[in-house]
Amino acid sequence: MIIRPPQNWFVRLFNWHGSVLSMIIFRLGLNLFMSIVAIIAWPYYENLNIHLTVAPFSLLGIAIAIFLGFRNNASYSRYTEARMLWGSVTITSRSLMRQTVSALPEDTATQQKLSHYLTAFSWCLNHQLRQQDATLDMQRLLPADAAAEVMKSTSACNRILIFIGKEYANLRREGKINDFVWQNIDENLNELSRCLGGCERIANTPVPFAYSLILQRTVYLFCTLLPLALVSDLHLMTPFVSAFISYAFLSWDSIAEEMEHPFGTHPNNLALNAICTSIERNLMDITGQSPLPALPVPDKRFNLI
Amino acid sequence: MIIRPPQNWFVRLFNWHGSVLSMIIFRLGLNLFMSIVAIIAWPYYENLNIHLTVAPFSLLGIAIAIFLGFRNNASYSRYTEARMLWGSVTITSRSLMRQTVSALPEDTATQQKLSHYLTAFSWCLNHQLRQQDATLDMQRLLPADAAAEVMKSTSACNRILIFIGKEYANLRREGKINDFVWQNIDENLNELSRCLGGCERIANTPVPFAYSLILQRTVYLFCTLLPLALVSDLHLMTPFVSAFISYAFLSWDSIAEEMEHPFGTHPNNLALNAICTSIERNLMDITGQSPLPALPVPDKRFNLI
Amino acid sequence: MIIRPPQNWFVRLFNWHGSVLSMIIFRLGLNLFMSIVAIIAWPYYENLNIHLTVAPFSLLGIAIAIFLGFRNNASYSRYTEARMLWGSVTITSRSLMRQTVSALPEDTATQQKLSHYLTAFSWCLNHQLRQQDATLDMQRLLPADAAAEVMKSTSACNRILIFIGKEYANLRREGKINDFVWQNIDENLNELSRCLGGCERIANTPVPFAYSLILQRTVYLFCTLLPLALVSDLHLMTPFVSAFISYAFLSWDSIAEEMEHPFGTHPNNLALNAICTSIERNLMDITGQSPLPALPVPDKRFNLI
Amino acid sequence: MIIRPPQNWFVRLFNWHGSVLSMIIFRLGLNLFMSIVAIIAWPYYENLNIHLTVAPFSLLGIAIAIFLGFRNNASYSRYTEARMLWGSVTITSRSLMRQTVSALPEDTATQQKLSHYLTAFSWCLNHQLRQQDATLDMQRLLPADAAAEVMKSTSACNRILIFIGKEYANLRREGKINDFVWQNIDENLNELSRCLGGCERIANTPVPFAYSLILQRTVYLFCTLLPLALVSDLHLMTPFVSAFISYAFLSWDSIAEEMEHPFGTHPNNLALNAICTSIERNLMDITGQSPLPALPVPDKRFNLI
Amino acid sequence: MIIRPPQNWFVRLFNWHGSVLSMIIFRLGLNLFMSIVAIIAWPYYENLNIHLTVAPFSLLGIAIAIFLGFRNNASYSRYTEARMLWGSVTITSRSLMRQTVSALPEDTATQQKLSHYLTAFSWCLNHQLRQQDATLDMQRLLPADAAAEVMKSTSACNRILIFIGKEYANLRREGKINDFVWQNIDENLNELSRCLGGCERIANTPVPFAYSLILQRTVYLFCTLLPLALVSDLHLMTPFVSAFISYAFLSWDSIAEEMEHPFGTHPNNLALNAICTSIERNLMDITGQSPLPALPVPDKRFNLI
Repeated sequence: MIIRPPQNWFVRLFNWHGSVLSMIIFRLGLNLFMSIVAIIAWPYYENLNIHLTVAPFSLLGIAIAIFLGFRNNASYSRYTEARMLWGSVTITSRSLMRQTVSALPEDTATQQKLSHYLTAFSWCLNHQLRQQDATLDMQRLLPADAAAEVMKSTSACNRILIFIGKEYANLRREGKINDFVWQNIDENLNELSRCLGGCERIANTPVPFAYSLILQRTVYLFCTLLPLALVSDLHLMTPFVSAFISYAFLSWDSIAEEMEHPFGTHPNNLALNAICTSIERNLMDITGQSPLPALPVPDKRFNLI
Repeated sequence: MIIRPPQNWFVRLFNWHGSVLSMIIFRLGLNLFMSIVAIIAWPYYENLNIHLTVAPFSLLGIAIAIFLGFRNNASYSRYTEARMLWGSVTITSRSLMRQTVSALPEDTATQQKLSHYLTAFSWCLNHQLRQQDATLDMQRLLPADAAAEVMKSTSACNRILIFIGKEYANLRREGKINDFVWQNIDENLNELSRCLGGCERIANTPVPFAYSLILQRTVYLFCTLLPLALVSDLHLMTPFVSAFISYAFLSWDSIAEEMEHPFGTHPNNLALNAICTSIERNLMDITGQSPLPALPVPDKRFNLI
Repeated sequence: MIIRPPQNWFVRLFNWHGSVLSMIIFRLGLNLFMSIVAIIAWPYYENLNIHLTVAPFSLLGIAIAIFLGFRNNASYSRYTEARMLWGSVTITSRSLMRQTVSALPEDTATQQKLSHYLTAFSWCLNHQLRQQDATLDMQRLLPADAAAEVMKSTSACNRILIFIGKEYANLRREGKINDFVWQNIDENLNELSRCLGGCERIANTPVPFAYSLILQRTVYLFCTLLPLALVSDLHLMTPFVSAFISYAFLSWDSIAEEMEHPFGTHPNNLALNAICTSIERNLMDITGQSPLPALPVPDKRFNLI
Repeated sequence: MIIRPPQNWFVRLFNWHGSVLSMIIFRLGLNLFMSIVAIIAWPYYENLNIHLTVAPFSLLGIAIAIFLGFRNNASYSRYTEARMLWGSVTITSRSLMRQTVSALPEDTATQQKLSHYLTAFSWCLNHQLRQQDATLDMQRLLPADAAAEVMKSTSACNRILIFIGKEYANLRREGKINDFVWQNIDENLNELSRCLGGCERIANTPVPFAYSLILQRTVYLFCTLLPLALVSDLHLMTPFVSAFISYAFLSWDSIAEEMEHPFGTHPNNLALNAICTSIERNLMDITGQSPLPALPVPDKRFNLI
Repeated sequence: MIIRPPQNWFVRLFNWHGSVLSMIIFRLGLNLFMSIVAIIAWPYYENLNIHLTVAPFSLLGIAIAIFLGFRNNASYSRYTEARMLWGSVTITSRSLMRQTVSALPEDTATQQKLSHYLTAFSWCLNHQLRQQDATLDMQRLLPADAAAEVMKSTSACNRILIFIGKEYANLRREGKINDFVWQNIDENLNELSRCLGGCERIANTPVPFAYSLILQRTVYLFCTLLPLALVSDLHLMTPFVSAFISYAFLSWDSIAEEMEHPFGTHPNNLALNAICTSIERNLMDITGQSPLPALPVPDKRFNLI
């Protein structure tokens, strides 16, 4: 499925993307309030001996933009790494099924059993990362006793991998899969283990908290003080220009904040449900099961969940 | 085939590259219109109590340039990653054929059959990514029943990989390919699976929509308001300078937008047809088939399709 | 375990994160002191023939921000690489146990012995990197003679890897693990060796000392001289603006300094104890041991140790 | 061979490096011409109602510097990737010979034959990338019929790889090389295939033409207009300052242009001849052939060809 | 061994790090000299019709900072890549010894022989990269005839790898090491080959000479002309501010220059001797040899050699 937002710049410009604006609306309001304060206070600047010029704010603003660029890079690379890991879950599940189907072309029961285990692994990882209850999906996809053992375990996804490993080891011992095939399969299991570990790492190691705090405080303070400095140059135009500058800085900070935690259910997070459904459809297609679960459809903001 | 645009700076300067300019011409026009508004309105600025100076726009412009730099990096790395994945499809197809030809030096029929499957995989991926109909190419390259099954499948490319996997598994079972050779072949099939998954990931996970929206709105608003701020310094020179600055910002945004979706058929997208033709030629050369399909030729903008 | 700091911007803004502020409080005080000096000295500037304007400081400030951005990248990439290496220790330990459990499903004693060795490896690496005494953990997890030999060795962690390698080699020679399984296990041991070597590399190759010295001296001198340049524009507002700018620069420098050495026990260092506990819990879960050690809990700054 | 340009800054400063300066001399001249125009026209600015100040050019100049930084990164990463691929050709050729010599310690004839094939591969790739005729080197290194077949093929380098693959497959079938050794050799052949494909990718996928066009036009226009804006501040100093700024921008653009196409024979391109000679010397040293071809010597600009 | 420079900012600030300052002292002096020239010439500026303002220098300075940032990235990534390659030499040598000791637990003679070969490889690479004579270390570590052959060879390090490869091939032929173990060992030999090739690549492919020349000339010219532009704003403060700015730019350029060639014996180069000693200690520890060579100690600048 190819997802491409509208390309016409005019359509894009007036596309309503509530998510980010709604997150910064209060801070933008604060900025407008400070603009009004600045306009009212300005005639008394001389008397109060207040001097604020744009120059030092310009220096600070550019420094903040550079730091925001750094934070955006860090957040975006977390997002893309998370997407790559889920891409690898998809790829590796399909490769494992290809190897299984090629090695056991007649044994449909085993093929489908393993496809259920692999599907269960991706849904389990999804629920773990989003801190949701995985019971329903586990019961749907796994044999009753395996589902119970998985739900009891303190590391449910890893437990499913152990099950899969044991299945293939049994097939090897029974001579159904030869040693050479097993070796390549085992390497793909290692890859699934890497994906699991990588996702856990991203989820439990946020960018150090102090990092984002320092930047956000600097951004908020900058946006709040900016009108006081702009007013002597811009007078009545202060609210427009300072709101515009604040919009740029606050929305970039907001979206960086969203991408930093890619496993949530916010609009700019990863569409884990869609990915899992896609894996399920792929594995069912390979092993000839039907009917396939419905394809997810992007919402009007071009996001999937 | 080596593609190198003309190096002489003078020839380059006057080379017409319609694609980008045509995409931003309307917005550039808007900017010129605002310049005229600004020149007409300027004498009344005093009366209207409007004060707009370059300083805050300078701060904002540099911040926007930094953010544009970030977006360019993100888009360009999608483009280069997509190119690398297709490079790997080429490389892996050739390696697979080398392994096949070395292992079965006499069995020309099998060699050619597998070369057709591999060629079909690359064309099928091309058509899937560009959302085109693959039927003709599938019928041209695959046996009738395989072509029908592939076109019916919900994941056509993966289905071809499954076919290829089964072919090699049969050759292994028949003892024509020994286990050691099979292992290395299977790893190359995994690599094709990675390329497929990687391309799908790039196609169905655009840079979060909010990201480009925020930047584009900021850029458009900046370019539209710029003349109003420049006019008090530049008077009649306003249109020239503001159009120049807008050209730089808008065209960088436009090209980033194009590269972000590298699988289209725009001039700055990847030349998937040329790559597929090249793969087809290579595999035919290796297995001694002829006549080779014609080499694609870059158009006058040094683009291939 | 998913760690996500509070997302509400208002709660974040007033969250006390002592660590960084306490590190720069003295230098911020120095900056305020210079501001007062500047305000007092300013009326005599004319007589002393002192001229300091914001323009050259603006140039320097932006240059410093660019260099700080470079240093932040270097430090942050050390931090993330260190986290990746520890992530790989987790992943590889689990993969090794999966392979062991699959290959020896009945032999619980060997499973648990190897899980202890692997747990000992991670704790030993933790203690080595933090320059702590590992004796207690070694005695808890290893047989007495092995623990003694490890503690005597000049490269304790590597010695544990040698033990693990010998265990698997014995299992191979005894025919309990076949050659194919052994090969994949041996590759995972190589990966543990890579993690060990990578962590040692990060610990014993700091960013060249001269690098951070030059930057820090420039930052400190810049922050100290800034009030003298700002005072002619800002008069009484000098302390506020210069403290704000200094806060941004000094805190970014401070946090880069902390991340550069990710193996310490500072708030923004890696939570090695939590990672080791998590590895221990995972391996015990896989091999059916109990009771599991308690999960670590993040402190009020969302840090683990 | 260690290549290190002189380190003394004074010697470096006055080292003549014609290549870049000669490429931009005309554009620098144009800039000087515009400076003279500006100085002559300036007294009439008032009458012509022309107003041009440095501020908007400063904004644009910094934006262009940021974009130039991006282009430099893109070009330099093409250069380093190309160097890495050729490094890998060297490494893999040596590893293949090490494996061959270890497996067939007595069979000098086969060793030397394979060393010739590998040397031919690197020279063939060199000539293909530089669009030179490879006939002489092929005839020198390959048996007559193989040379003829290679020169006839539409993908000559790949054809050599096929030959090498068949040689090793024959050695495997004849039992001279066992299956395990063959597996590792085959992986190194895959690596050579990756290097070939990677080099082709760099050569036939330039940075999209529109990208460099936009930047270059912006740079040229900026440098041309700059004197008109500087003249009101700098009067007679305009030519010096504007030539200095233009020199910085134009030379960075020029060198980025050179690095973007690393396989040429320009001074700042890769020294493919030197690398191929070095591979040839290495393989001859390993297989005990003599006399070795002469080591290439860097020219007075510290470049090899 | 954990190396961590003092963390107290005050101690750091006054830590004498002669290396960089001594490299730029002459150029800083030149800058001070120009400041004095500027102060003396300034009263005559009007008469000489000289106009120099900070604005164009500000634009140029920021552009130069951006380009310096690029050069720092390029140099630092050469440094870290070199460190990674040497880290991999350490890791791979230890892994090879682990595999050898596990496979031949009784055969101490062979273990120690191979540990000597591996140690010789790292010392030989060290001496080759630093262009030092390796004879003493070769004679100390290798059998007399092997040492002689290595010293005669045109690619000494590679020759040692060939020896090691032959040793393992012999062990395989004699049945002491089985084929599976040999395969994994051979992959580690390939890795050593990659490290060797990677280090050679860094040593014989400097960042193109024109690159650093352009930047350095721009930096020097900028620093030299800066006082002339600053003097009209700063008068007597010119020397202080211009020396400060020059210090920042020149020292960043100097340290980038040092890191670009990481294999020298300068303070900010890699501590190859320490790394080789550490490898030697590790391999002796694994194979039970004694006494270990002494650990290197960092000097007062926290550098090892």
